[in-house]
Amino acid sequence: MAQAQKTAIQPTRAEDYPEWYQQVIRAADLAESSPVRGCMVIKPWGYRLWENMQRALDDMFKATGHQNAYFPLFIPMSFLEKEAEHVEGFAKECAVVTHHRLEPDPNGGLRPAGELEEPLIVRPTSETIIGATYAKWVQSYRDLPILINQWANVVRWEMRTRMFLRTAEFLWQEGHTVHATSQEAVAETEQMINVYADFAENWMAMPVIIGSKTPAERFPGAVETLSIEAMMQDRKALQAGTSHFLGQNFSKAQEIMFQAENGERQYAWTTSWGVSTRLVGALIMTHSDDDGLVLPPRLAPDQIVILPIYRDEQQRTEVLRHVEALKNELSEKTFRGSAIRVVIDDRDVRGGEKKWHHVKRGVPIRLEVGPKDIEKGSVFVGRRDQPKSIGMSREEFVATVSDILEEMQQGLFDRAAQLRKDNTCTLSSESDFRDFFTASDENQVHGGFAICHFADEQSIEPLLKELKVTIRCVPSSDNNEEGVCFATGKPAGKKAVFAKAY
Amino acid sequence: MAQAQKTAIQPTRAEDYPEWYQQVIRAADLAESSPVRGCMVIKPWGYRLWENMQRALDDMFKATGHQNAYFPLFIPMSFLEKEAEHVEGFAKECAVVTHHRLEPDPNGGLRPAGELEEPLIVRPTSETIIGATYAKWVQSYRDLPILINQWANVVRWEMRTRMFLRTAEFLWQEGHTVHATSQEAVAETEQMINVYADFAENWMAMPVIIGSKTPAERFPGAVETLSIEAMMQDRKALQAGTSHFLGQNFSKAQEIMFQAENGERQYAWTTSWGVSTRLVGALIMTHSDDDGLVLPPRLAPDQIVILPIYRDEQQRTEVLRHVEALKNELSEKTFRGSAIRVVIDDRDVRGGEKKWHHVKRGVPIRLEVGPKDIEKGSVFVGRRDQPKSIGMSREEFVATVSDILEEMQQGLFDRAAQLRKDNTCTLSSESDFRDFFTASDENQVHGGFAICHFADEQSIEPLLKELKVTIRCVPSSDNNEEGVCFATGKPAGKKAVFAKAY
Repeated sequence: MAQAQKTAIQPTRAEDYPEWYQQVIRAADLAESSPVRGCMVIKPWGYRLWENMQRALDDMFKATGHQNAYFPLFIPMSFLEKEAEHVEGFAKECAVVTHHRLEPDPNGGLRPAGELEEPLIVRPTSETIIGATYAKWVQSYRDLPILINQWANVVRWEMRTRMFLRTAEFLWQEGHTVHATSQEAVAETEQMINVYADFAENWMAMPVIIGSKTPAERFPGAVETLSIEAMMQDRKALQAGTSHFLGQNFSKAQEIMFQAENGERQYAWTTSWGVSTRLVGALIMTHSDDDGLVLPPRLAPDQIVILPIYRDEQQRTEVLRHVEALKNELSEKTFRGSAIRVVIDDRDVRGGEKKWHHVKRGVPIRLEVGPKDIEKGSVFVGRRDQPKSIGMSREEFVATVSDILEEMQQGLFDRAAQLRKDNTCTLSSESDFRDFFTASDENQVHGGFAICHFADEQSIEPLLKELKVTIRCVPSSDNNEEGVCFATGKPAGKKAVFAKAY
Repeated sequence: MAQAQKTAIQPTRAEDYPEWYQQVIRAADLAESSPVRGCMVIKPWGYRLWENMQRALDDMFKATGHQNAYFPLFIPMSFLEKEAEHVEGFAKECAVVTHHRLEPDPNGGLRPAGELEEPLIVRPTSETIIGATYAKWVQSYRDLPILINQWANVVRWEMRTRMFLRTAEFLWQEGHTVHATSQEAVAETEQMINVYADFAENWMAMPVIIGSKTPAERFPGAVETLSIEAMMQDRKALQAGTSHFLGQNFSKAQEIMFQAENGERQYAWTTSWGVSTRLVGALIMTHSDDDGLVLPPRLAPDQIVILPIYRDEQQRTEVLRHVEALKNELSEKTFRGSAIRVVIDDRDVRGGEKKWHHVKRGVPIRLEVGPKDIEKGSVFVGRRDQPKSIGMSREEFVATVSDILEEMQQGLFDRAAQLRKDNTCTLSSESDFRDFFTASDENQVHGGFAICHFADEQSIEPLLKELKVTIRCVPSSDNNEEGVCFATGKPAGKKAVFAKAY
C-alpha cells in the first residue's frame, strides 16, 4: 500500500473539513480564540489580510460616491423595539449593557453598579441608531441621497461560533443610504451587491452568484435582500455579502421624512449593505489546501518573500546585498496597479522550517537565493499554486513577475469556478434532489449547488429541513424561464440555488 | 462706537470659548451628539479628518516596526480585578454587559434576559485582555519583542462629556508591547512619545511639550507615563497622547513570563501607548478662529476647493471645462510627498453661502474662477489663514501652490508656538503662581503655562486644588537645573509645567 504524502495540515480536507479549517487558521497564524466566549483575536497576519480587503472595498465605496462616518456602539433598547421584524430578528442574540460602573462586592471581588435607566444594546447592526440620526438630517429632497458607510465592530451573541465565519464580535462595514424614490434605493441596493461581486471575483478570486433571498431568508425588516453566494471546497454555500432594500419600513419606524419638490412630506426609502471578517473565512475555504493557506496575490499581505541562503558571515553579507537589490527591483514592478509587496526573511531559522512557515501562511511566491544562484544569475522560485520549486534566470523572473502573479490570481479563480461548475446540477424531481443532498461517501460530501424551479417556500420547507438544505438565492441572471416546482409540480416562474450552507 | 466685525461663529472665542468650540464643530459639520448619552456621531467631514490622522500615524507605527491586530471588545470582570491600581482607575466608569438577549416584558416592551455567569466590561483600555493573550504567546526570549497596535473603539462612562475631548465612546489606537528587558521597554515608551510629538508638530502643526507625569497623574498601573502637552487658544493645556512604561506590573498580574537566554523564567516588561479622537478636539482648539475651523493643509480632507462662477449654461460649460483642467493640473502637484487634494464645488448654492461653507469647514485654499478670470488667465485665491482673497495669475498659482501650502502649514505651527511662548512664564514664588492662575479679565483667561521647580506633589496639592491647576508634566528636555520649590522652598531637582487643563 502506497504511503499517503505527508501534508503540512493535519487532518486533510478529505479527512475532516471543519477541523482542517481550524488548523489552517492556526498554521497560518491568522487568528485564535480568546478568553471571551465567542470572540476571537485577529493576529497580525490575519489583520493585514483584513486591512487589504478593507482598503480595496473602501476605495470601491468612495468611487461609487459614499463617505465614511461613525455612529455609536450602543443602541437604546427602545430603538430596537420600533421595527417589529427587526427586533424579532435580533432580540435573541443581543449583548445588553445594564450598569455603568463596578463596585466592591461585600463577598469579595467586584459587582456591577449604577444601573442604567434604559438598557443599552451593543449594536448587532445599526439601522435603528443611524436611522434616528438620519431623521434629523433629512428635511428636504435637497438633503438626499445620503450615502454613508461605517467601518465598525458589531456583536451578535451566537451560541455556536467558528472563527471568522460566525463570532460573537466581528468587524464589518455597514452602508446606510437614504433616497427620495423607491427606484433610486433599488438601484443603490443593486449597485452595492455588484460592488461586492466585483470584489469577490476580482480581488478574492472567488466566483459568486448574485441573487435575491426568499422572504424567510431576508434581513429582518427588509423588503428585499440581495446576496452573493459562493461555493466552498466542501461544496457548501457561504453567503459572503448582502445588500438590503429596506423600502420605507425603517423610515416609518424612525420618522425619516422629507419635503418633496412638490411640497409633500414623504417617507424616505432606505438601504443597507454589509460585508464582514467572514470574508476571511470564505477566502480560506475557497483556496486553501492541505499544506495551509493559499492567498490570491492581490490580497496577500506579502506577495513575494525572499529567503537568503548562506553558510557563513561572508556569504551572508554578499547574499543580503544581492537580495536587497533584488527586492528593490521587484518592488518597483506593479501588479494590477499596485507596487508589488516583497519582503526578505532573514530570521535565524532552519531553511526547511522557514520555507514551510511561508507555505502555510500562503505567501504566493518564495524566492530562494544563495551564492550559487548569484553566480549563475538565477533564482529558485516556489509558487504556492505549484508543488515543486523551479530554477529560473533572475532576469526572466523580474521581467515576468507581474505575469506570474496575474496567472496565479486568474488560476485560483478558474479553479474555484471549475469546482463550482463540477458540483452544480439542474434538478427537476424530488428524488433527484434527495439523492443529490444525501451524503454519498464516507466524508459526508453532498452534491453541491442544485438549481431548481420552485413555486413557493412554505410548501417545500419540510423537505429542506429534513435534508438540512436552504434556499441560497433566486439568481438575478438567466432566470426567466417558466417551469414547474421540483417538489410540488406547481407552475414556477423562477429557479433558485439550493445548498447546504455555512 | 465702532461696530464689531460680524464673525461666522457666534459666540467668538473671546466671548465664550467653550461655546465657541461647540459652534465650530457644528458649523464645520464635524460631529454631533447622538441619542445615546455621551456618545457622538462623527460626520463625514470629521471622519475624513480622523482617517487622515489614522493613516499618517499608522504609517509611523509600521515604520517603527509595529503591526496591527485586533482583540475582543469585552473584558471578563475578573480580568480587571487582577491589577489593583488598574481596576481602581477604571471601575467607576465601566459599561457592564450582564445579559445576552432580550425577551418580551409582561408589562410591555422588552427586558434583558439570559444573565451571564460573569459580567463583561466594554473595554475602557485593553491591557488586561491583551496581556492574557500575550501570556500565551510569550514562552521564550525568542518570542520577544512583541510590537502590536490596535485601532479600536473604547468606552469610559464619563459623567461630563464634550465632543471629541471627552466622550463615553471614543475611537483610538492602543499599542501594547512586550520586551525582555526594562531598558528595551523604556526605549519603546520614549520612542512612541516621540512619534506622537512628531505627528503633533509636523502633521497637526501643534507644538507640544514632552514630559513625564507625576505619580498622581500616571496611568493606573503604570510605572511611568510620558505625555505630550499642548496649549490651546484659551491657554489651557490639553494632554494629546500618552505612552506608558508598565514595568512588570501587568506581566505579573497576567503571568507574562519568558525563558531568558540563560534559562531563567522571568517576568516580561510591557508598555502601552495611545492617542484618540481627542486629537480632533486638540486640532480644533489650536488653530480655529471666529470664522470656524482652520486646518493644517497636511491633514485637511480637501486642500483646495475650486468654486466655478457663471451666469448661464453656456458660461457654465466653458468654466467647468476650464476648472476641470485646472483641477487635474493641481492634482499632479505634491505637498510633503502626497498628491494635492483638489475638489470642484459645483453645487447649486449662492456664491456667498458656498464660500462660507468652505471657510467654516477649514478648507485651506478656495479658488474662485469665472469667465473674466479665464480671459485674464487668473484665479481669485482665498487663503484660510488670510482675511482677504487676492487675484493671482493662474500660472503663478500652479507653480507656487506647494509653497503656499507649506507656508500655511508652517504659519499655523509658528502662530501656535508664539501663543505658547507668550503665555508661558517661569515662576518661583507662590504669590506669583497665584496671580498667574487667577483670572485677570472678564473672560476668565488665566496665565497659561507656569514652569516651576517643585519638590513633591503632596505638599502642593491643596494649593493646586484651590486654583484648579494641575501638574501637566515634568519636561524631558532642559530640566537638570537645581532649584527650590516655588511653594515650599524645599530643594527641588526638577521643574514641571503647571496649567489649567482639559
